[in-house]
Amino acid sequence: MINVRTDLAVEAHEISKREAKEATEINGVISRVEEMGRITVTRVEITNENGERALGKAQGNYITIDAPDLKYSVEIYERVCTIIANEIHKMADLSPNSVILVAGLGNRDITPDALGTCVVSKLLVTRHLKSSMSNIFGDNLGDVCAIAPGVSGTTGIETADIIKSVTERVKPDLIIAVDALAAADIERISNTIQISDTGIQPGAGVGNNRSGLNEATTGVKVIAIGVPTVIDAATISKNEIPKEMAPLMVTTKDIDLVIERSAKTVANGINLALHSGMTLSELESLVG
Amino acid sequence: MINVRTDLAVEAHEISKREAKEATEINGVISRVEEMGRITVTRVEITNENGERALGKAQGNYITIDAPDLKYSVEIYERVCTIIANEIHKMADLSPNSVILVAGLGNRDITPDALGTCVVSKLLVTRHLKSSMSNIFGDNLGDVCAIAPGVSGTTGIETADIIKSVTERVKPDLIIAVDALAAADIERISNTIQISDTGIQPGAGVGNNRSGLNEATTGVKVIAIGVPTVIDAATISKNEIPKEMAPLMVTTKDIDLVIERSAKTVANGINLALHSGMTLSELESLVG
Amino acid sequence: MINVRTDLAVEAHEISKREAKEATEINGVISRVEEMGRITVTRVEITNENGERALGKAQGNYITIDAPDLKYSVEIYERVCTIIANEIHKMADLSPNSVILVAGLGNRDITPDALGTCVVSKLLVTRHLKSSMSNIFGDNLGDVCAIAPGVSGTTGIETADIIKSVTERVKPDLIIAVDALAAADIERISNTIQISDTGIQPGAGVGNNRSGLNEATTGVKVIAIGVPTVIDAATISKNEIPKEMAPLMVTTKDIDLVIERSAKTVANGINLALHSGMTLSELESLVG
Amino acid sequence: MINVRTDLAVEAHEISKREAKEATEINGVISRVEEMGRITVTRVEITNENGERALGKAQGNYITIDAPDLKYSVEIYERVCTIIANEIHKMADLSPNSVILVAGLGNRDITPDALGTCVVSKLLVTRHLKSSMSNIFGDNLGDVCAIAPGVSGTTGIETADIIKSVTERVKPDLIIAVDALAAADIERISNTIQISDTGIQPGAGVGNNRSGLNEATTGVKVIAIGVPTVIDAATISKNEIPKEMAPLMVTTKDIDLVIERSAKTVANGINLALHSGMTLSELESLVG
Repeated sequence: MINVRTDLAVEAHEISKREAKEATEINGVISRVEEMGRITVTRVEITNENGERALGKAQGNYITIDAPDLKYSVEIYERVCTIIANEIHKMADLSPNSVILVAGLGNRDITPDALGTCVVSKLLVTRHLKSSMSNIFGDNLGDVCAIAPGVSGTTGIETADIIKSVTERVKPDLIIAVDALAAADIERISNTIQISDTGIQPGAGVGNNRSGLNEATTGVKVIAIGVPTVIDAATISKNEIPKEMAPLMVTTKDIDLVIERSAKTVANGINLALHSGMTLSELESLVG
Repeated sequence: MINVRTDLAVEAHEISKREAKEATEINGVISRVEEMGRITVTRVEITNENGERALGKAQGNYITIDAPDLKYSVEIYERVCTIIANEIHKMADLSPNSVILVAGLGNRDITPDALGTCVVSKLLVTRHLKSSMSNIFGDNLGDVCAIAPGVSGTTGIETADIIKSVTERVKPDLIIAVDALAAADIERISNTIQISDTGIQPGAGVGNNRSGLNEATTGVKVIAIGVPTVIDAATISKNEIPKEMAPLMVTTKDIDLVIERSAKTVANGINLALHSGMTLSELESLVG
Repeated sequence: MINVRTDLAVEAHEISKREAKEATEINGVISRVEEMGRITVTRVEITNENGERALGKAQGNYITIDAPDLKYSVEIYERVCTIIANEIHKMADLSPNSVILVAGLGNRDITPDALGTCVVSKLLVTRHLKSSMSNIFGDNLGDVCAIAPGVSGTTGIETADIIKSVTERVKPDLIIAVDALAAADIERISNTIQISDTGIQPGAGVGNNRSGLNEATTGVKVIAIGVPTVIDAATISKNEIPKEMAPLMVTTKDIDLVIERSAKTVANGINLALHSGMTLSELESLVG
Repeated sequence: MINVRTDLAVEAHEISKREAKEATEINGVISRVEEMGRITVTRVEITNENGERALGKAQGNYITIDAPDLKYSVEIYERVCTIIANEIHKMADLSPNSVILVAGLGNRDITPDALGTCVVSKLLVTRHLKSSMSNIFGDNLGDVCAIAPGVSGTTGIETADIIKSVTERVKPDLIIAVDALAAADIERISNTIQISDTGIQPGAGVGNNRSGLNEATTGVKVIAIGVPTVIDAATISKNEIPKEMAPLMVTTKDIDLVIERSAKTVANGINLALHSGMTLSELESLVG
């Protein structure tokens, strides 16, 4: 297993191949790159336990969208929203009656960890209106609810436990979990979005341990969507990082802006996927 | 039942007596005032259905702490924290092993409704540390967890439903629910704290309907702590408030500061009550 | 002079006519209404001292844009941005070399008073880049700087004094002052934008006294742009407002969202006016 | 001159001595350490040009307060406030009639750079009240004003230029400039405060160039107070930092809390110094 900490399967794959000095593919890992103008979509599939060990990630599909111009171009932003929506539809078998729970993970008071809570604040949430207004909405609007439960350091409760409790009550057909990620390469910060059908594994995010959130633990399919917002201090450090450096965080100076923009892109990608009768313009004017 | 909207039993009582033009007490309502220097503590007890109807509140005890100098005096602030802690102990039968869940209600993005979430951010939360560190903590620290679930308008889920779900998993011995209140008299804003053993009734708070949160619905005793942060527009209006004025909110210009200070007082009152081995100074340095 | 407090000339005119029970126009006030689809533009011109006394406003032009669908429609938002840009060009004689100072007034910590500081944060500011990058920018970008000086309660300095000091150093050709306004009619909150060529008079805004900011006091033309965010408590009150109610503030529950949206509209209207070589889409992607 | 970037004279001195492999003192640098319980005060004086070159700092006095327990102990916090107040009095010759301008530097929207603006929000500002209330205040309250002008990236104006403009109008007897600093050693973050009588040199702060702010440029004595909130990425990096890493920022995960606490300490140290008739408790209750 690779020694560098990254939450991105695409980076784990690159590093794994480099460390193995292998030109050939790793057994158990299939990767396919698609260039779409100034957007690159890389699909990494981990198909067996050898692939899991090599990349340090669970079996499943990891879609990485790289869009270096995301922050400068309205057109790229709109195309990325559409790609996110399409990938969600490929992973989940949604019907007009599906109930979806979006879980925004992370700590809203630590800027680089606030992506999940920020996405939740930009969602078009409808579950509380659906029953009374179904005649108005028709099938244009999905049945969406959302929580941003906070982190165990501020609640005293495992985040996965809160989500499981709410899942038991709301009985969603799909959970979409959104979280900030760590990357190895600083170029990924603000340019990359990863979507996977494997859920969230323990220990992902900005250094906080959380128990897993996936189909095995919740009984419901879990799509995870993440954006790298920090790089591991170890990645840029000259020596092995000493214990007292653990609380260090390496991020970019414009991280506030990065979070705002990434959250808008992810939120509207999800909005487009779940409210299939609405255009992006209509959704933007509704969610502010 | 009185026509003015107030969440304060002490105001409902005053108005009810005034409207009834009765000098004598209302059947089913017992009130007792205690002057403590520049702090007044009023205890209103509603003992039967007649009292419930007269005041529009559930049977139970409502303690109102009025401290006009709360914002100017560190000494008054410290005494109010101690009074809150003592009243919580009178209402709840806490042992060193009790688990307490604090629920911060309201919408963190609407300043006058943010009291509950703000209190949660100032609590000393320990449940996630308790098991591994009980040898260090001993009985000085309680077993406290907390959630700030948001409002149904942003989650799509009834707030009471989220709290009930978490309650089923965490199995607390006591719930303390904190929320912003509406008062009839603007003098109450920023000076008053109400503590009651009746839980939260549907419709309390800044005009949002919520289903009830009390012992009947959760299976656990619910202490409600509230601070008035708005007055009902109807209270100061010359005419019956037309429908389109419903979204209006009447509050004070310094509401940001009021929320910050009130939240600190309520949070440290709760901290003092639940972590009985700690002094206020020690708690303040731990929670920032 | 009218007894109701409003910063909107269009309301002062309506009330003045109603109080005078005159069907004919007031001497010294010319008003013209233009319907543009779902947007109404009203031009009130105060031409003499009689008009000043009648409306309680300085001589000059007051353009009011009413757009009830501003918050629901991207198309309306884009049209309002263009109208703001056009009105600025009509009032000011801008050349490619003009230097413009935008002053965002008000207190960022009181939500309904934060409009001005919020607009400043959304401007495309270029003055510090202009000299070194003029070959890249050409005449597409204006020469724009901006300050949000705070209020005298938190700085100890008259806001107008800070702006005058900076004006002496920066030597702008035009000042655009942005501030939150009080309206008489709650329907105006979030739907209305007023642009005037008279600058800011003492006492405008959310109840804070400020000395005047206009061509007489600064030596530079001052365009004032405002959005109503509060209504005067006196407007809805049954009695004369007692002194202790002065700190009250009447606003809408969604004021955070109103400020965000109004600030975006005003800021991009200004951006469009001052950076004449850019489209709204390009500006939006640059300012986030 | 040393190769590591640090804004702390005490670190520059340590590194300089280490690099020179000299046991003896550097010519032009005098250093004196004072242990005060759990607080260490180090006084570095740079007395000639050789000292300036060796440490890369201007001639003058640099007082460094190291208090590792600052965040855990109310007693240490109170003692540090008093030390700051005393050092300000040693550096400046204040009389009851002195006017003091506090300038909070940095960008409020980038958390580790927000120290200066955060300090300004916690000051007891009195200049606007002084004339009308001098009979009430007597000599207990100083004559204090404050500005947080923002950074040139968001205003288009050099920060020093804004401060000089306001200085010309307000004519203070002393400027206190507060800013976030970079340190070489992560242990310094959140534990250290530096006070110097040399003002702010160009290039200090979180990587933003600013022209100097000192007695030579303003005509008024400038005391600079800083707290390290970031470490230079170069400090922990294995290689020379490539150009594209320039926007990286290395800080601690709890930086929001660090800023809040450090700002409170610095602000109340300044408040104590400037309002000599007030106790720390009284000041805390007035500034919230």
